[in-house]
Amino acid sequence: MLPKTKSLGYHYIWDLSGCPSDSISKLSSLKAFANDLVSSLNLTVVGESGNQFSPHGATCVILLAESHLSVHSWPEENYLAIDLFSCMKIESIEVFDKIVQSHFGESLKIETQFLERGL
Amino acid sequence: MLPKTKSLGYHYIWDLSGCPSDSISKLSSLKAFANDLVSSLNLTVVGESGNQFSPHGATCVILLAESHLSVHSWPEENYLAIDLFSCMKIESIEVFDKIVQSHFGESLKIETQFLERGL
Repeated sequence: MLPKTKSLGYHYIWDLSGCPSDSISKLSSLKAFANDLVSSLNLTVVGESGNQFSPHGATCVILLAESHLSVHSWPEENYLAIDLFSCMKIESIEVFDKIVQSHFGESLKIETQFLERGL
Repeated sequence: MLPKTKSLGYHYIWDLSGCPSDSISKLSSLKAFANDLVSSLNLTVVGESGNQFSPHGATCVILLAESHLSVHSWPEENYLAIDLFSCMKIESIEVFDKIVQSHFGESLKIETQFLERGL
């Protein structure tokens, strides 16, 4: 990937393993986490959508004035995929670990990537 | 980033520059493109949300049975950020270029990244 000459989007990518399956099975749990995270980061919600899969697993997307947050769960793998795409760099992003642990337990393994998006 | 021992998600990331601003200003244009792309890739829509920004620019997210597609536009920069996250590898992904060019012109510069997500 070539370096960007103009950054327009800041894309935070997390792969979480070791999530207790009952904590990530329901859409309601993902929504509660997602709303807690965007509120803690002072992001502005402009829409929300989600889907509960059967027998378990869910997808939750929050549309933000700054772009979006998506959360997908694989309870059978104890895995959660989270993406936060923002048009502004988020200075307080280190709160992520604390919020995710308060919702999904402290024995998580958190793998983080960061991409600059733009021209 | 460590290699995955078990791939659960296939994340296609595109940064498009050189998009005519009037082709990416409106939510309706992004929705038409997004629905055309997911239909061409035989993905299953389970929800849709979007937001029109003022004076221009939009966000469109399609929830899929396979995960999600997000599209964000910066008309003032002639830039479009597109993410497709799927629980299945998409064999026909090469149709992307043709579809994006049919909606946003043939003089685009398309930068592509691919991430495997999972454990």
